[in-house]
Amino acid sequence: MRFAAPLRGGQGCGYRAPVAANPGVSRRGLIGGAAAGVAGYALSGPSAAAAERSRRVDVVVVGAGFAGLEAARQLKKAGRSVAVLEARDRVGGRILNVPINRKEVVEIGGQWVGPTQDRVLGLIGQLGLETFPTYIDGQNVYYRSGQRQTYTGTVPPASGAALLEVLDVISSLDSMAQEVPPEAPWDAPRAAEWDSQTFETWKLANTSSGEARELVDLSIEAVFAAEPRDLSLLGVVFYVRAAGGFNRLIDTAGGAQESRVVGGSQLIATRMAEKLGKRVVLKASVRRIRHGKDGVRISTARGEWRARRAIVAVPPTLAGRIEYSPKLPGPRDQLTQRVPMGSVIKCMAVYDEPFWRADGLSGMTTSDTGPVKLTYDNSPPDGRPGVLLGFVEGQAARELTQVSRPERQAQVLDSFARYFGDRARTDLRDYVDKSWAEEEWTRGCYVGYMPPGVLTGYRQALREPVGRIHWAGTETATVWNGYMDGAIESGQRAAAEVLRGL
Amino acid sequence: MRFAAPLRGGQGCGYRAPVAANPGVSRRGLIGGAAAGVAGYALSGPSAAAAERSRRVDVVVVGAGFAGLEAARQLKKAGRSVAVLEARDRVGGRILNVPINRKEVVEIGGQWVGPTQDRVLGLIGQLGLETFPTYIDGQNVYYRSGQRQTYTGTVPPASGAALLEVLDVISSLDSMAQEVPPEAPWDAPRAAEWDSQTFETWKLANTSSGEARELVDLSIEAVFAAEPRDLSLLGVVFYVRAAGGFNRLIDTAGGAQESRVVGGSQLIATRMAEKLGKRVVLKASVRRIRHGKDGVRISTARGEWRARRAIVAVPPTLAGRIEYSPKLPGPRDQLTQRVPMGSVIKCMAVYDEPFWRADGLSGMTTSDTGPVKLTYDNSPPDGRPGVLLGFVEGQAARELTQVSRPERQAQVLDSFARYFGDRARTDLRDYVDKSWAEEEWTRGCYVGYMPPGVLTGYRQALREPVGRIHWAGTETATVWNGYMDGAIESGQRAAAEVLRGL
Repeated sequence: MRFAAPLRGGQGCGYRAPVAANPGVSRRGLIGGAAAGVAGYALSGPSAAAAERSRRVDVVVVGAGFAGLEAARQLKKAGRSVAVLEARDRVGGRILNVPINRKEVVEIGGQWVGPTQDRVLGLIGQLGLETFPTYIDGQNVYYRSGQRQTYTGTVPPASGAALLEVLDVISSLDSMAQEVPPEAPWDAPRAAEWDSQTFETWKLANTSSGEARELVDLSIEAVFAAEPRDLSLLGVVFYVRAAGGFNRLIDTAGGAQESRVVGGSQLIATRMAEKLGKRVVLKASVRRIRHGKDGVRISTARGEWRARRAIVAVPPTLAGRIEYSPKLPGPRDQLTQRVPMGSVIKCMAVYDEPFWRADGLSGMTTSDTGPVKLTYDNSPPDGRPGVLLGFVEGQAARELTQVSRPERQAQVLDSFARYFGDRARTDLRDYVDKSWAEEEWTRGCYVGYMPPGVLTGYRQALREPVGRIHWAGTETATVWNGYMDGAIESGQRAAAEVLRGL
Repeated sequence: MRFAAPLRGGQGCGYRAPVAANPGVSRRGLIGGAAAGVAGYALSGPSAAAAERSRRVDVVVVGAGFAGLEAARQLKKAGRSVAVLEARDRVGGRILNVPINRKEVVEIGGQWVGPTQDRVLGLIGQLGLETFPTYIDGQNVYYRSGQRQTYTGTVPPASGAALLEVLDVISSLDSMAQEVPPEAPWDAPRAAEWDSQTFETWKLANTSSGEARELVDLSIEAVFAAEPRDLSLLGVVFYVRAAGGFNRLIDTAGGAQESRVVGGSQLIATRMAEKLGKRVVLKASVRRIRHGKDGVRISTARGEWRARRAIVAVPPTLAGRIEYSPKLPGPRDQLTQRVPMGSVIKCMAVYDEPFWRADGLSGMTTSDTGPVKLTYDNSPPDGRPGVLLGFVEGQAARELTQVSRPERQAQVLDSFARYFGDRARTDLRDYVDKSWAEEEWTRGCYVGYMPPGVLTGYRQALREPVGRIHWAGTETATVWNGYMDGAIESGQRAAAEVLRGL
């Protein structure tokens, strides 16, 4: 009987295998090396006793995404011993650089940072990294009902009536957001009302123009990689509150898409991991957490760790797949059944140069026609090579994972050609995409979102520790929930909880 | 370091440990014995080679609930070899008998059968079991706003306006159900509209009386163990269609609560398992399924099985916790993140006799005040002992799992006393309850339900085989979805799929 090898981590991903290590980072040398050391020790031998000792730490952190790495960094700073156990063969979680030539990378996961994301911006500075502005010069494309138009600035050439309705939606959401306590959205005065309806229901009641509805849909899909019908209104309003306003979520300049990291956003994670050294253990997927009043025991693909406390820094749906002994309280387990990951395929087409710039285009598109309805110029700082980024989100992503890979690429390039002309097809040098639903250790992106009834039904179960197990991950953040900044905040909060308990 | 022992299966449940085996069933002797044989063989030794052969079967079935047992029964009937791998130390899944004395049991899980449930009724006959009518003689209690009234028949003494609205709701849902193809609810003409809103949204738009809304809420909670805000309208309408009408779901006489099984409904499962003999293997939780074009390999707590095909007969949220190699397509995995189990605590108070009968009461209550809003007389056929059954459902269940066990019992008995007088407290002989969210191998009851967006977003992923892996379980049923009858239908359908492919 022949079986396919298990697909794990970087293997079997929807994108081309990396051809070169990231510049300035030797993941295999630094982090992989640490892991190999631990794995080597897992074998029995004369040093087994010493190794056994080394596997006792103050705190085990599950997951080497931004939340887990930041938690570990805080614990190390406080003088505590820590082990970060990561299932993949790399760090960074939903943040992932992919080389596109010997020098440059593109980010096939999360990439942007923007104003008020002070935690991630501060970290970037501390780690000696730099940011550069997202390319926005020139005209944007607005595509609707088969018509392509161009425009400058942030307001697409939609009808006046549609734009007024969209502004009204934004203003309503911003003002509703002010009523939501970010640390307890379930306590908002109208929480029950807002958590009892989908965002779609609210949108239909608060708009009448078809074009306005399409623009609202597009912005919701862009932010959540889910459809308005999937989302609790309260969940959306909380998300707006955590980001500090709706425009913060959707804007490029002045918003969450404002800046990029030179060398790729995964460098933040790899630099953090370098400083943690052997504390980070790769290919150590966590299978079981036994916990009691005296501590925790963590069983992994690479053996067992013991600690006084654990921080589980993975999305709720992944946290739910770990076996706990004793099992978790019903409400906590049921919460993990109810926070699904979004659906997105992030697609990048590489060209010798960003040819659209010569046509006076910014590379940004807003479209009513899929599969790609949203594009950006994602070239490196010097514009060489040129990279077009397209998002396939929500329902479109669910559907596009079901066609063949060549068909998928063809449909994405058709979208690009519709917005930027036929050179998007003819001048193609390389194509990279990734369906995050197919990633075993993420199972969707950008974020675990809240369907109706979950925030008010499960409340503190999102963040409240269970004995000696603490919860981190951007889904637990109270600021910039769903973003790198929120992940870092959650890691800091969980580390502080643990330090109070140690 | 001291750790609590892992809590599994019958241990650590929310109810009293059984004090005697069920009459006429020797679970340990018949089924447990088979399992012990397999487990013994898993040790190395002279018979290892023979054992290895015995672990190759045509089909492995994961889960010995009604769906899995029925699938195995059909495969056996067709002359195929089969192994049913069950995580618990018992069969029956969500169906579970608990002894209340040396002779009688109560069912702490699913229990009722009713008209048009022809599959389960047929099976009961085939297995030599008998049914008896749910006790409904006498007056029912209607409790609202602190007022207790009694009434006969199926229509509570609510205001005329409320009753008319409820009748209108039922009639609307029944007529909408006719538009939903049970095998493909996502193809209903108004599927997008209905799947974009919560049932709560629809209810608010289609009722105005507070009393009507309470009655509708109560019926939804009784059917789904979830709140109207948790549920997709399309999901509810599909459920009504699968049952053949709303009244079929909520009625006792003439509906899904009409009859009970003499000796307890779990006897259906234990009798099926007896006939399957050593094919049923207990305490064999499935951890990984490797699958390829030539077959499947199933890794369990008791070693490995190989087969040509697998039927996974557990709820989607549990199926999602199995590791698959290669991993499942994104949409299938994402579906398993989106079908959460309901929340219910089933509570039974045992008395020497059903004292309420002497007061002319049926034991049935409909109330606006929790935690118990719905009660039944659940005594054995001869009325000795007397058993009051109360349901704590949806949000009330989530809250009541968070108080101490004595407090929980006290609150439930307070509810019973409110409806049946103080003897419900003073004459108590025994008390049994179970929060199904706390059950590791079910994680909630009655059923995995559909939040908005899931049926239309994931469609065939609910039932479509992935290579050689087939999906069963009542959540995949097209008739009586969520019931024992639906579980059996799903097992038959999956077995037929497999037989076509073998």
